[in-house]
Amino acid sequence: MKNNENTLHFDRVALIGIGLIGSSLARVLRRDGLAGHIAVCSNTHATLDKAKELGLADGSEYDARQAVDGADLVVLCTPLGAYGRIAEVMAPGLKPGCIVTDVGSVKQCVISDVGPHVPEGCHLVPAHPVAGTEHSGPEAGFAELFHDRFCIVTPPPGTDQAAVDTVIALWKAAGSKVESMSAHHHDSVLAMTSHLPHLIAYTIVGTATDLSDHLMMEVVKYSAGGFRDFTRIAASDPVMWRDVFLSNRESVLDVLGRFTEDLTALQRAIRWGEGDKLQELFTRTREIRRGVIDAKQA
Amino acid sequence: MKNNENTLHFDRVALIGIGLIGSSLARVLRRDGLAGHIAVCSNTHATLDKAKELGLADGSEYDARQAVDGADLVVLCTPLGAYGRIAEVMAPGLKPGCIVTDVGSVKQCVISDVGPHVPEGCHLVPAHPVAGTEHSGPEAGFAELFHDRFCIVTPPPGTDQAAVDTVIALWKAAGSKVESMSAHHHDSVLAMTSHLPHLIAYTIVGTATDLSDHLMMEVVKYSAGGFRDFTRIAASDPVMWRDVFLSNRESVLDVLGRFTEDLTALQRAIRWGEGDKLQELFTRTREIRRGVIDAKQA
Repeated sequence: MKNNENTLHFDRVALIGIGLIGSSLARVLRRDGLAGHIAVCSNTHATLDKAKELGLADGSEYDARQAVDGADLVVLCTPLGAYGRIAEVMAPGLKPGCIVTDVGSVKQCVISDVGPHVPEGCHLVPAHPVAGTEHSGPEAGFAELFHDRFCIVTPPPGTDQAAVDTVIALWKAAGSKVESMSAHHHDSVLAMTSHLPHLIAYTIVGTATDLSDHLMMEVVKYSAGGFRDFTRIAASDPVMWRDVFLSNRESVLDVLGRFTEDLTALQRAIRWGEGDKLQELFTRTREIRRGVIDAKQA
Repeated sequence: MKNNENTLHFDRVALIGIGLIGSSLARVLRRDGLAGHIAVCSNTHATLDKAKELGLADGSEYDARQAVDGADLVVLCTPLGAYGRIAEVMAPGLKPGCIVTDVGSVKQCVISDVGPHVPEGCHLVPAHPVAGTEHSGPEAGFAELFHDRFCIVTPPPGTDQAAVDTVIALWKAAGSKVESMSAHHHDSVLAMTSHLPHLIAYTIVGTATDLSDHLMMEVVKYSAGGFRDFTRIAASDPVMWRDVFLSNRESVLDVLGRFTEDLTALQRAIRWGEGDKLQELFTRTREIRRGVIDAKQA
């Protein structure tokens, strides 16, 4: 493993999980020649075959311990719920100096679930590339997915700085803007910017599916009025998102509580015909869009 | 006014209100030479000046009664809350045979607020082009806005068929796919596909604005995780949407009640760690996206 001013190179990278994010990262490693060898691990043989077929895997392993053998970089790219078990299985195979990182959407749980298994002399540097699409699987990935997106690293206090710098260099190579913050702060911010929006999108699309078949067909037909945008978000990977909500329970329930209060107040304003309250809110929210556009996130 | 197999032409069209939708319709009329004269009415002088500057108005009037003078087609393009008052003011100026239509997002209220003012011999044909952007004002419009979008007409039973056919021909000229249904049914379907999504987007963006300034800045910064899509919807015209919620109160409160129940159930599943329930819902909602894609609404 090298990370000099001009050279980032890993002898062996192990990707544990190879879905949308893992396969996109594999494509970056391939494109830029960042890895001498990529070992891919999945608990689904069809996924391993697909990764090989796509030219993303030099070796493929069903067993995480085999996959990490000799690796100087291990990247967990599975749903969050599998992290603890994988960490336990792979731990005895980690070579000294190895960096263990991940791409999960919640970060405190990585430190609590994976951290205890990482041996002395290896380094845990949790990371979260804030990027994705509603598609999943190794064939859904593309190298440009991370370009101009943020990647947030949340190394626990005391983490080896060289290891942190290497993970930062990796995501910069992928084209990302890298920020560092505490795992706790990450989980609060993302609960609002990502987890709550997904939860709400899943809910409203679910509410629509409970309508009569005839009405449901019309909802789909006339979805351009706003509903459509929610269906895209609510098409995201079910297992990944199940684990996000279970892993970031406290922060999600906190922002959800605030949201529900606000929605109830709005419901009351509609029932009682309080147009001023509605207009005041709708004018305020319009300002936020300007902020998003100014921040070049639109 | 002519509506033969190959010819749709109005001698005088009055557009009451000239925002995003009204100005887009004016551009269609201009592009296809469908109107001999376009009279534009607005309660804002700056808007009238802008409409003239854009070449969308042959005449401009501050007073709705003056604007409809001699018109064979009158199109209400203001927020819904203004319809009743405008109808009362313009009614004495409507010429026999005139068609009164509109572009509002709720339809029962058009029949109840405008209907009683339309004199014998004139024809009320409510219509709703299901199209829009988050921008407003006459400069935000464009002739292609309605292309390949649905337009729903909701003529009350007994409406003159020639008048209905003329309004249908107008929207077909704009490139829309025209459907006909009852105003009541329209309002139920749109409450789900459009009004509830907007209400939720306004709420979540409002919830975010109540965060501390520092946290709010980060929410904007990392908005690509899902929040961004909501900010676009929540940037829609505040007065227009205030009136939509007040005008479709019953249907909006109905779907909102269903949504809140479903959200509460999901909140409980998160709190108690019921992953199976989450995954089952998230898998179900993914199917809907396929429906939207199959219906070519994606």
